[in-house]
Amino acid sequence: MTDAVVVGAGLAGSLASVYLARRGFHVRVLERREDPRTPGVRESGRSFNLGMSQRAAVALREIGLFDALAPATVPMRGRVVHLADGSLRFQAYGTEEDQVLHSVLRHDLNVALIDEAEKQGVEFRWGHKVTAVDREGPSVTTVSPQGMVEHGADLVIGADGAFSAVRAQLARGARTTLHQEFLEWGYKELLIPVGEDGRPRTELRALHVWPGDDGLIVAHPNVDGSLTATVFLPFEGPGGFAGLDTHSRVRDFFARVFPDTLTLVPDLVEQFLARDVASLVTIRTEPWHVPAGDRRGTVLLGDAAHAVYPFFGQGMNAAFEDCSVLDRCLAAHPHDLPGALAAFEKARRPHTDVLAELSKRNFVELRDKVRSPLFLARKKADLVLHRAFPRSWVPLYTLITHTTVPYGEALARARRQDRLLGSVTAALTGAALAGLARRSRRRRSARQVG
Amino acid sequence: MTDAVVVGAGLAGSLASVYLARRGFHVRVLERREDPRTPGVRESGRSFNLGMSQRAAVALREIGLFDALAPATVPMRGRVVHLADGSLRFQAYGTEEDQVLHSVLRHDLNVALIDEAEKQGVEFRWGHKVTAVDREGPSVTTVSPQGMVEHGADLVIGADGAFSAVRAQLARGARTTLHQEFLEWGYKELLIPVGEDGRPRTELRALHVWPGDDGLIVAHPNVDGSLTATVFLPFEGPGGFAGLDTHSRVRDFFARVFPDTLTLVPDLVEQFLARDVASLVTIRTEPWHVPAGDRRGTVLLGDAAHAVYPFFGQGMNAAFEDCSVLDRCLAAHPHDLPGALAAFEKARRPHTDVLAELSKRNFVELRDKVRSPLFLARKKADLVLHRAFPRSWVPLYTLITHTTVPYGEALARARRQDRLLGSVTAALTGAALAGLARRSRRRRSARQVG
Repeated sequence: MTDAVVVGAGLAGSLASVYLARRGFHVRVLERREDPRTPGVRESGRSFNLGMSQRAAVALREIGLFDALAPATVPMRGRVVHLADGSLRFQAYGTEEDQVLHSVLRHDLNVALIDEAEKQGVEFRWGHKVTAVDREGPSVTTVSPQGMVEHGADLVIGADGAFSAVRAQLARGARTTLHQEFLEWGYKELLIPVGEDGRPRTELRALHVWPGDDGLIVAHPNVDGSLTATVFLPFEGPGGFAGLDTHSRVRDFFARVFPDTLTLVPDLVEQFLARDVASLVTIRTEPWHVPAGDRRGTVLLGDAAHAVYPFFGQGMNAAFEDCSVLDRCLAAHPHDLPGALAAFEKARRPHTDVLAELSKRNFVELRDKVRSPLFLARKKADLVLHRAFPRSWVPLYTLITHTTVPYGEALARARRQDRLLGSVTAALTGAALAGLARRSRRRRSARQVG
Repeated sequence: MTDAVVVGAGLAGSLASVYLARRGFHVRVLERREDPRTPGVRESGRSFNLGMSQRAAVALREIGLFDALAPATVPMRGRVVHLADGSLRFQAYGTEEDQVLHSVLRHDLNVALIDEAEKQGVEFRWGHKVTAVDREGPSVTTVSPQGMVEHGADLVIGADGAFSAVRAQLARGARTTLHQEFLEWGYKELLIPVGEDGRPRTELRALHVWPGDDGLIVAHPNVDGSLTATVFLPFEGPGGFAGLDTHSRVRDFFARVFPDTLTLVPDLVEQFLARDVASLVTIRTEPWHVPAGDRRGTVLLGDAAHAVYPFFGQGMNAAFEDCSVLDRCLAAHPHDLPGALAAFEKARRPHTDVLAELSKRNFVELRDKVRSPLFLARKKADLVLHRAFPRSWVPLYTLITHTTVPYGEALARARRQDRLLGSVTAALTGAALAGLARRSRRRRSARQVG
């Protein structure tokens, strides 16, 4: 039996442990924090809820957990954009029934994965903090109130998040590439409570967005009818977290920039002043995997390998897809663990590098471009073409969110479309559209051959 | 009196301590290693000798040490290129008498700076390893055989190299940008000994270069008539350090790629197999400085702030220029230390970012382009124009090496020249050259105005 040690019992680590157990590995998960199922334990510094898109849904279906989770999720069928004048605009996500996102509490999803892992025989050790990783073993040394333990294994997985201790330990004395960048904006979360009549205060089956260059809010619905809003603002400046430090400054700012939030969140000012600011980091690193001899090795996945900004809503989705891709690589190299890890990094890293860039770009779009008429015209043309040619013309957002086309291929395809779209918006003629239709038919035939 | 603690007694730290002492600071330097003046102590893992160019020379003149160092240096008036057919080509560095580099042993330079610092009243603590930095103090905690000590100060300077402990400590819980990349090539050093007749085996007053895409050697002269060669090779592959692991493989490789080195270094194979491989890292980070209240602060400089590849020969030169720029900023803000540190980072970081890019690019040039006829033609045209218009047309290499024009301005100017040069090599007519001469006169007048 192959021994696996997974560091981190968050979303990525607990899902990875389920995949490994299903593949017949003997799995031990080491987690610094306490068991989230312990009453009173609440994770701090992490977003409260998440939007599961197609990539996460596929992974959860693979392990048979998607349907069981349905009661804990709220489907989001589109985006409600809140404009500064108080008006709302609804944009459906797509043309097909399965083009929805599922909002879920991080806590509920994590507990479901841990429960499933234990059912599959995975052993969890809580309160175990990593102090060393021996890449040659491999082994992981932890300290806990019970003392120091060295955990040897055939496979060590570092799924311990953006500030991964496993990654830091692997980098000691090695030629490790690391790119770490923090956004000059941070975030605080606010609860939009259920109304006094017991009903949601706004459309529940949608993602809510307040775009803008002074600040940006995104809200996800919860099953109890409340929503959790994430307020993104600059750290510095008078309209940043540093400057919004009194009741009147907070109230004036929201009244001016996001007027309807003061109605949606009656105690907005109190919540805002009580919460800590969290920061946003992009991490790119290389290598992800380190072989140990010709039979064993260590690998990073999820945020430990590639933390991204949340503006494409793909952090958890990409981490789940990692687990799914790693599982396929282990299947393809059943007697060659180092080969499987190398194949995983080779298959996966180029795509998460693209995701990091897209997630940065989407921040700029949400902040700056969303008010540009040209940008909006192009977005609209993009959607119109998608409705006209649903299979051959798919906007980037749709490719990333509602398909499992690898991120890099999604970007390449969107770039081709974007070049065409440039011509289209320039010409804006029926002839151009007819030409596109011909081209799209040709491409479809080409695809069936390739 | 203002208290300064400098972490690192290498080249950057010891020079910084001299500047601070001259400015009236009370300075303590903390160094992990032993005193390099102790007999038998030899620094490991660092290049053996260095090329001082204009920027380092200016800094050493500012502290009055340049002339005293002259007997310990060898002037290099140009570059000797060793071609694969065994032939040599000499390229003078420039058109002016002061366009020379000075080769010096790192050890000699470091000892001279430490001696000078002690003369200025700087106190050195050897064998002190940093275990913590308190950014709010600021203070530095060290452990040494004598125990643990906390060193409080008004100004803390992290001059502790590419893998700076001060930088790592400042980054804890902060939004620190870090870009760390290792080159896929490493290096080993070889001694080209004095000949049996007691004379140098090759031209002493020059830098020697063996360019190529299979490997790259650079050699600096020493005052005793020997030279130190740095052999750059890929880590991996049959022609990389990993594959060159037997006598016959090393001999065959050098006979094929660098034939004349086997004559210059009679025991080349033995030296090569005995040495460890060192790696090359680029570090970019932000911020460099952290204020503590409105009177104190911490700042990084030298490799701790911006490690670069050595292919522009600017690592030490940039570190010395840092010390000089910081000293000017302290002079300009005599009663505002945080303001001085902010001004230093603002003035300096954009230029060292440019240097990092130029140093990467020069590796690619030395490896790939040096054999391209078009590249060589452009290089030649660049030099011809420099001879014709020595003040208004200055090649990038000359701007970086023989002037103190800030790196970013040097690059901007070279780009303008490069665009013109593109037209020149395309046209190659006397008319074009005449036009350039007119433009350069106009630019000269414009500059006198600006």
